Amino acid sequence: MEFTILRVDMTSGECRFEPLPGEYTGLGGRGLTSSIVAAEVEPSCSPLGPRNKLVFAPGLLGGANCANVNRISVGCKSPLTGGIKESNAGGVPGGQLAALGINAVVIEGLAAEGRWHMLEIGKGHARLVPSVAHGLNNYDVVSRLAGEYGKSCGYISIGRAGEYRLAASSIAFTDQDARPARHAGRGGAGAVMGAKGLKAIIVNPEGSSPLPVSDAKAFDKTAGCFAAILKGNPASGKSLADYGTAALINIVNEAGGLPTRNFRHGRFKGHESLSGETLHRLTRKRGGRVARGCMPGCVIQCSGTFLDRGGRYVSKWPELETIWAFGPNAGIDDLDMVARYDRLCDDVGVDTIDVGSALSLLMEAGVLPFGYAGAALKLVEEISAGTAMGRVLGSGAAITGKVFGLRRVPAVKGQSLSAFDPRAIKGQGVTYATTPMGADHTAGFAVAANLLNVGGRVDPLGKDGQIALSRRMQIAAAAMDSIGLCLFAGLAVLDNPETQSCVADMLNAKFGLTLGAEDIAELGKKVLRVELDFNRRAGFTEAADRLPDFFSDEEIAPHAAKFDIAAQDLDSVLNV
Amino acid sequence: MEFTILRVDMTSGECRFEPLPGEYTGLGGRGLTSSIVAAEVEPSCSPLGPRNKLVFAPGLLGGANCANVNRISVGCKSPLTGGIKESNAGGVPGGQLAALGINAVVIEGLAAEGRWHMLEIGKGHARLVPSVAHGLNNYDVVSRLAGEYGKSCGYISIGRAGEYRLAASSIAFTDQDARPARHAGRGGAGAVMGAKGLKAIIVNPEGSSPLPVSDAKAFDKTAGCFAAILKGNPASGKSLADYGTAALINIVNEAGGLPTRNFRHGRFKGHESLSGETLHRLTRKRGGRVARGCMPGCVIQCSGTFLDRGGRYVSKWPELETIWAFGPNAGIDDLDMVARYDRLCDDVGVDTIDVGSALSLLMEAGVLPFGYAGAALKLVEEISAGTAMGRVLGSGAAITGKVFGLRRVPAVKGQSLSAFDPRAIKGQGVTYATTPMGADHTAGFAVAANLLNVGGRVDPLGKDGQIALSRRMQIAAAAMDSIGLCLFAGLAVLDNPETQSCVADMLNAKFGLTLGAEDIAELGKKVLRVELDFNRRAGFTEAADRLPDFFSDEEIAPHAAKFDIAAQDLDSVLNV
Repeated sequence: MEFTILRVDMTSGECRFEPLPGEYTGLGGRGLTSSIVAAEVEPSCSPLGPRNKLVFAPGLLGGANCANVNRISVGCKSPLTGGIKESNAGGVPGGQLAALGINAVVIEGLAAEGRWHMLEIGKGHARLVPSVAHGLNNYDVVSRLAGEYGKSCGYISIGRAGEYRLAASSIAFTDQDARPARHAGRGGAGAVMGAKGLKAIIVNPEGSSPLPVSDAKAFDKTAGCFAAILKGNPASGKSLADYGTAALINIVNEAGGLPTRNFRHGRFKGHESLSGETLHRLTRKRGGRVARGCMPGCVIQCSGTFLDRGGRYVSKWPELETIWAFGPNAGIDDLDMVARYDRLCDDVGVDTIDVGSALSLLMEAGVLPFGYAGAALKLVEEISAGTAMGRVLGSGAAITGKVFGLRRVPAVKGQSLSAFDPRAIKGQGVTYATTPMGADHTAGFAVAANLLNVGGRVDPLGKDGQIALSRRMQIAAAAMDSIGLCLFAGLAVLDNPETQSCVADMLNAKFGLTLGAEDIAELGKKVLRVELDFNRRAGFTEAADRLPDFFSDEEIAPHAAKFDIAAQDLDSVLNV
Repeated sequence: MEFTILRVDMTSGECRFEPLPGEYTGLGGRGLTSSIVAAEVEPSCSPLGPRNKLVFAPGLLGGANCANVNRISVGCKSPLTGGIKESNAGGVPGGQLAALGINAVVIEGLAAEGRWHMLEIGKGHARLVPSVAHGLNNYDVVSRLAGEYGKSCGYISIGRAGEYRLAASSIAFTDQDARPARHAGRGGAGAVMGAKGLKAIIVNPEGSSPLPVSDAKAFDKTAGCFAAILKGNPASGKSLADYGTAALINIVNEAGGLPTRNFRHGRFKGHESLSGETLHRLTRKRGGRVARGCMPGCVIQCSGTFLDRGGRYVSKWPELETIWAFGPNAGIDDLDMVARYDRLCDDVGVDTIDVGSALSLLMEAGVLPFGYAGAALKLVEEISAGTAMGRVLGSGAAITGKVFGLRRVPAVKGQSLSAFDPRAIKGQGVTYATTPMGADHTAGFAVAANLLNVGGRVDPLGKDGQIALSRRMQIAAAAMDSIGLCLFAGLAVLDNPETQSCVADMLNAKFGLTLGAEDIAELGKKVLRVELDFNRRAGFTEAADRLPDFFSDEEIAPHAAKFDIAAQDLDSVLNV
């Protein structure tokens, strides 16, 4: 089976298709982006300089006719963490690239200062053209480009935050309604795209033909079985569709692990106003759509549409982390305001987690009081305006904390923690501390076994089992991100031994392989090793695998919990 | 001989004199601050948190009756670099503390949130009192305190930048005219003092008696010899008094190593307007003072007073680095504006180097044009006002570069380079890259042998000899900073084999020792080892000992020089 890589040299303007070099064989998604970055990017380089590369890669099963495998990975040296970064998103471009037979797009070099380009990709051809969209934010970018290229194309773009090269800027991917609402949010990949002078990528799916499958019959059978399992699981089959990822708000709050007012408390009084149930109710009442997939082929459908009181589209359903960031952690209990925040962030192109966390820090610094949603939104609007305050905010929590002289800054490796307090959900704390990605809950979603009894059961407040849990989850995440599976499909897999073989069976049927579940784990380990090696060469040591000391010093209510996992245990997590 | 340490617990309010613990015997200045920080501060702690300590220590010869030994060292974990920090300053408090028999003041813990204190230190007593000066900048602080405590006291204080805990904030020490014009500028020690809730220290010298000297006769003889050598050296005996440290402007410019417009060029057209000669001429014309010591006992006298056209005091003579930072590197050729910049920085309490470098970055980002001195001063005024822009600027070059999405950011370990381009003065480049202090030219002043033929002669543009030169200079600096010697006395020492024994002889006569020159070098090595070990535990690896890649990628005119010292050679510098 042929694998193809598209290299785009922003310095010379050349676009070149080439066979995927042999050493990348068998890799997709995160496995491919991380391998390319680790092999081709000098770990010491400036993330915004000519030596960094920006890599897009659909997963190994991307474009295949099965459920929930069309995530797209973005990789680079992160301007936020200074380490390797993979961030993935839903949307349509991932599956489209795969269907065009493109396994990776690698953006290299830098365009001439002040020049903006767009990359057109179609069946067998690609070229750089002058940008017609710079200066615009994502919704206007897509509206402008869809007018020119049509609604069937997929669009990948940055807003003004990426143009400003802010360290928390995201890359937007259009969803099934041609809206730029799916984002590779974490780690500032948008700033790398902006530094390269690339405003947008247009993916034209015309001429795509079904991808080759080694054993089509076996594939279809296993894919059907996989979809049935996803639909049969109570989370992926029902509650995620009904309540979105916000289904977790009440669960995490009940566990005392919902960080409130910059991680001062573990429960938020106004949680009901922000819950999945409220999201569902408001959506029904206003005529919004419940149950919509963020990408083609999705059977989980956790991404509804959020309408305002007048029935006008505001945003896709805000994710749990977005609700947390602009909600409890900022002392805000208004879902309408959260949705406006989500829209603003998607539009200007920033990570809702890091920017939300930065807002809470501004509240802690006294710039505005906790709970003032209107004032907070005005600050977010400053990102687009490019004011000093806007740029600080768009640089994320760690920079904001530094600029405002704060010491309680919830970040690891320069990246903000998210909706799960590491003291009350300790497996998650272990992941925050040790993942090569900087504090990223998705890189090892220990919440599963800590709170959801998925993939095992580990007391969230105890020390026992957290290391092994985080390790297992980090290996699984690295594998799922390489295959293109969404996290929730991944949870259903973990919840069901039968599904685990399904995933291996699909890979076997597609590529003519004979993988077992242990090979999937080995893939995850391999990806982690590549990432850890890059970070080591970039200067990371075990000292970077620590939570800020206030998590060990300050108890969090209601469980009076501290983060008390020993440093030496943290150092053993990723001996994989 | 008894050594005494004053411990001040900001949490409990307790002040306690104790004998210097045995393991710190034989150490003073930087050797003492670095040893205390390395032994007592967890390398992983938040620099602004309760676990960091702020240490003040006069040098080993502090308070002695000899020339140029009254520097005071400040140590802590740096909020700017995340590593260990020693920054030293002239002024009167260093000698006063020594004369009071205090070898180190260690500030521990944190005051209650929002509470500001002052520390009164006198003969045999010390106490914390409520601050009457918070909210004020340094000149007003000292004016207020001098009104209360008298002009014979020494004052150590922070301006509003330190109150805001900005990462480039300095600590001010009053000079011989009771002005807060001598600063421990680098590395953000002012932010640590601010975080601890300590606004000022008042040192009352009443009751000080001459310090014990083991062999007074030998000491006086050697001290006389030492002073004579300083006076006989052409630099320390004349040109520094006539032209200040600005004496170097024309020399560095001629060498093509004066970084201009954010390190784009190596020579500045307007250098004559900023030279030591111009500084001297303007000072004479306006009736300012030429030849004044920054500290008692100084025979070099490089710190004149700068008056405005109306004959009013503006600042002490701006140092070379300040002139560079607000001059060539910002495209500004107006010494009056530089002096106003110096005054503003001293007043609000920030490092003129890091903030000047940040201003040049704002110019590179297009926030204001290069050369616009008035607009630049307005931005500096925003630091005191606490606007977002002011806070960014006061956080220094690395943060400013990040917030404004720049890739040509001249910083190592988060701290800005200064007035010597590493491509045209390569020994200095080696020091910037490798010193545990972050890019700090004083930590190993290779300019001496690269440009001044002091302490040897090494072609500044070649590769040969730079590693050994930087190593030698770093060892010498660590020793001098521990003894309390000023850098220029140190250069005279390096220039004259006879002087080297003088320094050892003074230590011998004072403490009853039998040190030789090699023991002085051993002291320097010991201090460096302690600092490197702290940084290693804080997570620094050789990857942090690199210049930003643009110094290797971009040539600098007029010599078309790049920084081309091999990484493996850099890694060998501090095997000491």
